[in-house]
Amino acid sequence: MKKVSNIAVLTSGGDAPGMNAAVRAVVRTGIYHQLNVYGVMYGYRGMLKNEIFPLESKSVANIIQRGGTILKTARCKEFYEAEGRAKAYENLKKHNIDGIVVIGGDGSFNGAYKMSKEFDIPCIGLPGTIDKDIAGTDFTIGFDTAVNTAVDAIDKIRDTADAHDRLFVIEVMGRDAGYIALHSGISTGAEHIMTPEHLIDVKDIIEDLQTNERRKKLVNIIVVAEGSIAGGAEEVARMVKSSCPQLDTRVTILGHIQRGGSPTSQDRVLASRMGYAAVEALLNGTSNVMIGIVNNKIQYTPLEQAIKAKEHLDPEWLKMVKILAS
Amino acid sequence: MKKVSNIAVLTSGGDAPGMNAAVRAVVRTGIYHQLNVYGVMYGYRGMLKNEIFPLESKSVANIIQRGGTILKTARCKEFYEAEGRAKAYENLKKHNIDGIVVIGGDGSFNGAYKMSKEFDIPCIGLPGTIDKDIAGTDFTIGFDTAVNTAVDAIDKIRDTADAHDRLFVIEVMGRDAGYIALHSGISTGAEHIMTPEHLIDVKDIIEDLQTNERRKKLVNIIVVAEGSIAGGAEEVARMVKSSCPQLDTRVTILGHIQRGGSPTSQDRVLASRMGYAAVEALLNGTSNVMIGIVNNKIQYTPLEQAIKAKEHLDPEWLKMVKILAS
Amino acid sequence: MKKVSNIAVLTSGGDAPGMNAAVRAVVRTGIYHQLNVYGVMYGYRGMLKNEIFPLESKSVANIIQRGGTILKTARCKEFYEAEGRAKAYENLKKHNIDGIVVIGGDGSFNGAYKMSKEFDIPCIGLPGTIDKDIAGTDFTIGFDTAVNTAVDAIDKIRDTADAHDRLFVIEVMGRDAGYIALHSGISTGAEHIMTPEHLIDVKDIIEDLQTNERRKKLVNIIVVAEGSIAGGAEEVARMVKSSCPQLDTRVTILGHIQRGGSPTSQDRVLASRMGYAAVEALLNGTSNVMIGIVNNKIQYTPLEQAIKAKEHLDPEWLKMVKILAS
Amino acid sequence: MKKVSNIAVLTSGGDAPGMNAAVRAVVRTGIYHQLNVYGVMYGYRGMLKNEIFPLESKSVANIIQRGGTILKTARCKEFYEAEGRAKAYENLKKHNIDGIVVIGGDGSFNGAYKMSKEFDIPCIGLPGTIDKDIAGTDFTIGFDTAVNTAVDAIDKIRDTADAHDRLFVIEVMGRDAGYIALHSGISTGAEHIMTPEHLIDVKDIIEDLQTNERRKKLVNIIVVAEGSIAGGAEEVARMVKSSCPQLDTRVTILGHIQRGGSPTSQDRVLASRMGYAAVEALLNGTSNVMIGIVNNKIQYTPLEQAIKAKEHLDPEWLKMVKILAS
Repeated sequence: MKKVSNIAVLTSGGDAPGMNAAVRAVVRTGIYHQLNVYGVMYGYRGMLKNEIFPLESKSVANIIQRGGTILKTARCKEFYEAEGRAKAYENLKKHNIDGIVVIGGDGSFNGAYKMSKEFDIPCIGLPGTIDKDIAGTDFTIGFDTAVNTAVDAIDKIRDTADAHDRLFVIEVMGRDAGYIALHSGISTGAEHIMTPEHLIDVKDIIEDLQTNERRKKLVNIIVVAEGSIAGGAEEVARMVKSSCPQLDTRVTILGHIQRGGSPTSQDRVLASRMGYAAVEALLNGTSNVMIGIVNNKIQYTPLEQAIKAKEHLDPEWLKMVKILAS
Repeated sequence: MKKVSNIAVLTSGGDAPGMNAAVRAVVRTGIYHQLNVYGVMYGYRGMLKNEIFPLESKSVANIIQRGGTILKTARCKEFYEAEGRAKAYENLKKHNIDGIVVIGGDGSFNGAYKMSKEFDIPCIGLPGTIDKDIAGTDFTIGFDTAVNTAVDAIDKIRDTADAHDRLFVIEVMGRDAGYIALHSGISTGAEHIMTPEHLIDVKDIIEDLQTNERRKKLVNIIVVAEGSIAGGAEEVARMVKSSCPQLDTRVTILGHIQRGGSPTSQDRVLASRMGYAAVEALLNGTSNVMIGIVNNKIQYTPLEQAIKAKEHLDPEWLKMVKILAS
Repeated sequence: MKKVSNIAVLTSGGDAPGMNAAVRAVVRTGIYHQLNVYGVMYGYRGMLKNEIFPLESKSVANIIQRGGTILKTARCKEFYEAEGRAKAYENLKKHNIDGIVVIGGDGSFNGAYKMSKEFDIPCIGLPGTIDKDIAGTDFTIGFDTAVNTAVDAIDKIRDTADAHDRLFVIEVMGRDAGYIALHSGISTGAEHIMTPEHLIDVKDIIEDLQTNERRKKLVNIIVVAEGSIAGGAEEVARMVKSSCPQLDTRVTILGHIQRGGSPTSQDRVLASRMGYAAVEALLNGTSNVMIGIVNNKIQYTPLEQAIKAKEHLDPEWLKMVKILAS
Repeated sequence: MKKVSNIAVLTSGGDAPGMNAAVRAVVRTGIYHQLNVYGVMYGYRGMLKNEIFPLESKSVANIIQRGGTILKTARCKEFYEAEGRAKAYENLKKHNIDGIVVIGGDGSFNGAYKMSKEFDIPCIGLPGTIDKDIAGTDFTIGFDTAVNTAVDAIDKIRDTADAHDRLFVIEVMGRDAGYIALHSGISTGAEHIMTPEHLIDVKDIIEDLQTNERRKKLVNIIVVAEGSIAGGAEEVARMVKSSCPQLDTRVTILGHIQRGGSPTSQDRVLASRMGYAAVEALLNGTSNVMIGIVNNKIQYTPLEQAIKAKEHLDPEWLKMVKILAS
């Protein structure tokens, strides 16, 4: 077991609410164990540019409740090349950094995995993404907040849908996974939920809307993941309009509000536990794993297996959605 | 002075948070004065279709905090024709209705004005619109809530803008007036605010963004009213991108979330005062006026003058926006 | 297996956000399966007084997002007596009710258990309590909302604590269990968390506060469950003040705000799944169990075992709290 | 007219949401006019202890949305003595400070007034207090946020009051003025509102509660300002309980949550305008005035007249409260 003395923490890829809570946990747990903790600005880009600074306990005071990330984040093409990673490693060595915690998604883990193979520097990944589409964990940092933000927005839209008897097609985030769509759709009593994983025939939706109309159920919400098989909200609305011109159909794309805001309690607790566990893992000589929470217990997954995971929906859930909105 | 005995209340045009609080105030003040109060469903359309129902004190319990409108709303082309209004009047007569309170915007007031001219039925208008663009009042029901919803959303977007050093072009509602853009822009420290009233040369914005970049101010927010002279957010972003390809520019259109949600305290108090004053006005024999609040006092404006009013911005405000965001 | 045709749903004991979502799920799932569904008002009291009404799909429209319970709730001493339950049973028979879903806490389950033993009427319990202290489920309906309400309030208090360098002792709900205190405390970076389950020597807290003072950490938050071993917030503050008179110590008791408000996404999804599963259980001939969710799967627990469960904290968590707040 | 070159800004007395927005406006307006701007920590106490630091444009980035005050605040007895003020003045002179902006309440203005008389240093006051009880302005920084926080909390309490048919006596802030009680009470449909300004005979309230009971109106909310003539919530509840033992009466004291949280749009705009106007005033040679907003226009009031102002309620409002809650 290699002794760790100086660790670095960075946030990488798309930002997610709760990343600050994770950074705080890494810093304070590290300091408690008498490690020196460094923050890398702008993800891997900062590693390449040597934007690496020491962090103290105070540096992370009063950030647990903040959205965004104080370490900032960026995407970095250079790091995809072995040469880029070599440069990054050199910078880490200048600070004697012998352990890294990367908070991000599967792309970020892939980078960490390659680096750890090439340079024998232990890397721990924390799943920070609103999309919750990472294998090896039940939850990702930011998912619960993003869903609640979407729910709050859809509740507001329902007020106006209801006042006017309108159909709203609402697009939520989720290019590859339908978790946000599914959870926000169930939570707001959406009549239909369209995801990247499940082919719903638009004909069925149209038929259903027409049935609703006969039953005088005139307010309808369709929640669409941006990567739904049938297309985004604009495409879905176009199809509905052409088949149901009598419906007053509107589109709202929730967009980037889903990435920001103060994290929910669940995301703060999750991020705190994961950040704490990341440092423990480095201290225990573990390396090149992602910290996940499975059945409420910390679980390690090798970084190379911590890849995007599609939702595998129990068909019972889809049945439930239909029944509850009826 | 004509004695009033049976009054009707309706919500018309676009919905706005606080309409329910106004309906509640009309109903309860009417009942207190021993009037019979009727609710007309779906605005003028319900008048034509005789969707008119008696309301009790209990009918409006627990609605002061709800967005939308329990009376629903709609637009109604038939009411623009004299024939349509005659039919509506007949329905009102079936219920012996001798006074009307219309909560809506300038189009709704125009309808009320015509009706009152043609049939000598006293009408009182209450300004219910998130756009605040009505002459004769400092505030309209729904404006404060809509602005706060926009501010809350932009705060969230700033979190992610800040994490990535991005420029966000954010579109808020306001086809004809820039009040929501102006207030939400100042409140969120937006670098630029684009409204239907003020021509800002996009060249100036681009120059300013380039200056900011030199100063390492990399996070920028531009708030654009949907009816801004330079176009909506998509148009503005297109122009910025073509001149500043190095900036990471994103667009968010807040859309219909701005119409819903639980009203703010200010909107609830405003709606309560206006609803109360509307019944008092009918009882005092006043007719065909809009109830406004000017300098915190109730003021009557003849319905035909309660038209859309553009914002007349003190140039000092524009100067302030620029200075505070610098 | 007994065929079920007419079911009743009631909410009992303390109310919790998400109860309406559960009622909605029971009603719609029942109707989907062609059952008649009745609502019992005011819990068992309404059973005794025959306040039992048929519910339609429309009766539960637009309530998924509402706090409180449309069926109202009450405590009912008479139901503790066999005579009372006999009277209740008679009323159920008048409506031919042959299945019951009770949403409430352990006291409510105990009532259901007795009734089912005495009269052979199948009862299904759903855990609805903000305290999360029920055996047989990982989550209870209302817990996540209550924690987030507490977190939102404590975040606000931290603003003012920080402005004045104050110590706040904040009391959250939890007479018998410390879950709300623990989760809200971790989420807000509280320096100390005091629960009914864990004896913390107040001397240790005082020593720690004095250490913080020397380190110039002047803002401190202590989160206290109302049933903490050391007493409520007032008692704890009294002890702290007498030992640390130099600290500017204040008390806030969050109180009943923790019971209300629009439920979070997690509570809505949980309540929807549980309500759906309750009707499925009745249809499958299951009876006298509580529906729980364990490791994200529906699990049945016999009603007589669905009792209050104390928190069994991993000592690692307590260590983490201390380290992260340091 | 004396030329100003170096100005200081401080927050003093109780904190209020929006103070940060005001600080930001003072700093950026000052810098725009090429002044040096200093921040004084902890109000007058920091003046005495020379805790005075230069502020840059960046120092106030991303604070417009934050509750609390980055400059912190404190009460300072020494400053009440001439000797203390002399010491403070000396410290100001060390930094060549020739203009001061004090954000606080009437006590803070009194200090500024004395100092300006004794040392001929121009002082501008900005009304920052949640209580809105300052003469010379229609609004104070923080009032709108505090009211909306109270309204949000009371809405939540109404959910649970409604579920149980309870009477809640809810105490809001306002030791000397009833504005928060009045506005939050109207906004939440409270049955009674008790303030420091208006003697309501508790007998009348009890009689009214008994009437409501006969009418089957079982849910009641009484909003009590902490300084109400009849006492705080505990006292009022005690009186109600002894006369109406059949009512299920509960007490909630909202407490310090009313001081924190992200400011509303109105408070941010107000604070921005006032901070901007304060620097303009100093530049124009104005001194020893408080900046107020009256009828939406900036207005100066001599500091010695910017004292606590009781609410002068139009009796019509009190009548309205009673009618709308009936």
